[in-house]
Amino acid sequence: MKDAYQKSLELHEKYHGKLEVVSKVPVDTAEDLSVAYTPGVAQPCLEIAKNKEDVYKYTWKRNSVAVVSDGTAVLGLGDIGPEAALPVMEGKCILFKKFAGIDAVPVVLDTKDPKEIIEIVKKIAPTYGGINLEDISAPRCVEIERTLKKECSIPVFHDDQHGTAICLTAALINALKVANKKPEDIKVVISGTGAAGSSIIHMIHDLGVRNIYAFNINGIVIKDDADSYDFLTKELAEITNLDHKRMTMKEAMVGADVFIGVSAPHLVTEEMVKSMNEKNIVFPMANPEPEITYEEAKHAGAYIVGTGRSDYPNQINNVLAFPGLFRGALDARAPQITEAMKVAAARGIASLVSDEELSPDHIIPQVFDPRVSKVVAQAVVDEVNKDK
Amino acid sequence: MKDAYQKSLELHEKYHGKLEVVSKVPVDTAEDLSVAYTPGVAQPCLEIAKNKEDVYKYTWKRNSVAVVSDGTAVLGLGDIGPEAALPVMEGKCILFKKFAGIDAVPVVLDTKDPKEIIEIVKKIAPTYGGINLEDISAPRCVEIERTLKKECSIPVFHDDQHGTAICLTAALINALKVANKKPEDIKVVISGTGAAGSSIIHMIHDLGVRNIYAFNINGIVIKDDADSYDFLTKELAEITNLDHKRMTMKEAMVGADVFIGVSAPHLVTEEMVKSMNEKNIVFPMANPEPEITYEEAKHAGAYIVGTGRSDYPNQINNVLAFPGLFRGALDARAPQITEAMKVAAARGIASLVSDEELSPDHIIPQVFDPRVSKVVAQAVVDEVNKDK
Repeated sequence: MKDAYQKSLELHEKYHGKLEVVSKVPVDTAEDLSVAYTPGVAQPCLEIAKNKEDVYKYTWKRNSVAVVSDGTAVLGLGDIGPEAALPVMEGKCILFKKFAGIDAVPVVLDTKDPKEIIEIVKKIAPTYGGINLEDISAPRCVEIERTLKKECSIPVFHDDQHGTAICLTAALINALKVANKKPEDIKVVISGTGAAGSSIIHMIHDLGVRNIYAFNINGIVIKDDADSYDFLTKELAEITNLDHKRMTMKEAMVGADVFIGVSAPHLVTEEMVKSMNEKNIVFPMANPEPEITYEEAKHAGAYIVGTGRSDYPNQINNVLAFPGLFRGALDARAPQITEAMKVAAARGIASLVSDEELSPDHIIPQVFDPRVSKVVAQAVVDEVNKDK
Repeated sequence: MKDAYQKSLELHEKYHGKLEVVSKVPVDTAEDLSVAYTPGVAQPCLEIAKNKEDVYKYTWKRNSVAVVSDGTAVLGLGDIGPEAALPVMEGKCILFKKFAGIDAVPVVLDTKDPKEIIEIVKKIAPTYGGINLEDISAPRCVEIERTLKKECSIPVFHDDQHGTAICLTAALINALKVANKKPEDIKVVISGTGAAGSSIIHMIHDLGVRNIYAFNINGIVIKDDADSYDFLTKELAEITNLDHKRMTMKEAMVGADVFIGVSAPHLVTEEMVKSMNEKNIVFPMANPEPEITYEEAKHAGAYIVGTGRSDYPNQINNVLAFPGLFRGALDARAPQITEAMKVAAARGIASLVSDEELSPDHIIPQVFDPRVSKVVAQAVVDEVNKDK
């Protein structure tokens, strides 16, 4: 049997990419051309020239997103360059269409300089209704996204940071409900402090979690070492490891309520899971090989397990978040995606599993649940309109 | 009756722009996702990382064109900015699809600095198979296109310059056949030395025309004044007005065989047409109001008249050239669009009117003739492969 990799290669070769750009309007006669193109098109142009906001009325901007990458952190493949990143960006675009009806196009960049990336995105931004940053390595991605959020008038969102964080937060909200625990009471160990890990830490901190220990390739994040950290890890040192303990991840796992992995395969042993608190929650999300497999974690007595994989219960997948989030942001004409909008999205996702349905193997809706993007979009729109 | 302008406004408001981005591959099941997206998509990514040329095998690059504008010279509306230019760029994209099956997307830029535009286009170029520059004001457009042609590895083409020139040249080739005149014998007066005018002058010069008088808002182009000209007009002063005459356009028209207008409405009178040589050819292409109307020109005894308008015979419209030209360039994987490819395109267009069909009111194929883009594409492919 062919595996997904071989099938994917054949699919991509057969179709030569996955995207097609089509016309929504007729182009069959000279009259069609005179309305869709010259001379008629001068009229919408003039209206927009008079009132720039009308660009949302007369053009694709109302419904379009650019999926922007420099190809420096593609899947688990690393810095493979803009051309090699293109299949992933096209894939992201078809997810935007499938799950939220958004017309998304890839833009891959032949530069790794954050300042250049920022300038280019700012200058091409009039074309689109939103910018989805994708597969840009940390900590550069954070600098790029934060600057663009400040300097662009359209929503800018780095999915690798916040998409994962929103879905993880949704899963955590429901898992804590099932385990009957409160954010402020739990101890969390997180492996990985890159794009996703840092955003998760900020987001669960906003949720009320205070007892967090974060690990990366250099060991535990600790304020004492902050001078040697990049700005991103420095921020994490402020809100994690509040008692400044030097310890291994194995030591930190003892008595922990939650493990979150956004790092690398097989870093967690069954012994470590066994040492956790009762009704423990394990989210090993490295993909496709998690920090510990579903079976191993369950075998070691984990109460709730969620991974990034579709072949096990509780798949925590970004596609639950980003389509609805952008749909809501575009529909509400939000100038940016705020922390409150992200939390609203997480609560929207979590709300789709009713109290009756909630169980250790059902804490998050299915990827193909057609309600998800609608509920997320509405939650985002409501949040934007709350203060109006 | 509603005119094209009002209809266009309503069409654009109803559809909110004209473009839609859709998936060519199925996205209905978890297995579909695993093939079109993660984890399977890693495989085409890795293949491209190994061999960059495979980006043409596995992605949309093989068939995609960016329609890039800074909004500085949109239709006849002038510098209306990137947002207001978007309806035109979307229109161009649907023409690419309709006439050549190409997936084109707009990129409008929030900068007018030629150096910045060049840098941005170079940096986004890995995304696309070709770049169509559009509605960028002269002479900046020439500097931008020439630099990009040198520094990009994909075809870059400024349609406002060369698209018009190719179609005009095709029309001229056949008009001279009908009038039984030779390029080297004729006297040409051209009104307009901007993007289109300068490219036309270069192209008909390449065709063998030597007796050319060019006019712009400052009067006749003349080498004696070259010091006060921009680089573009300086070039024209080298190949026009070889006897350095100072005269008005009215004076130049006396005895001329061909008039070409790419300037402004109503600059040519019936009297001027009457003063031309016998079997004269008049191409007043200012749009939608030409330098002289078809009726007036005919009334003044013009032998052959061609305009940009669809409601008269001999419509000289860029859509005859750019779709097939890019189709051929993409299919032949040409690294750039050369002068020879443009001439091949012009000859391809001209070839579609057979000697039996040729007449004063039939020198150029219809815009909707389905043979056009195929013949142009093949002519371009043959030209690219000629030296292989």
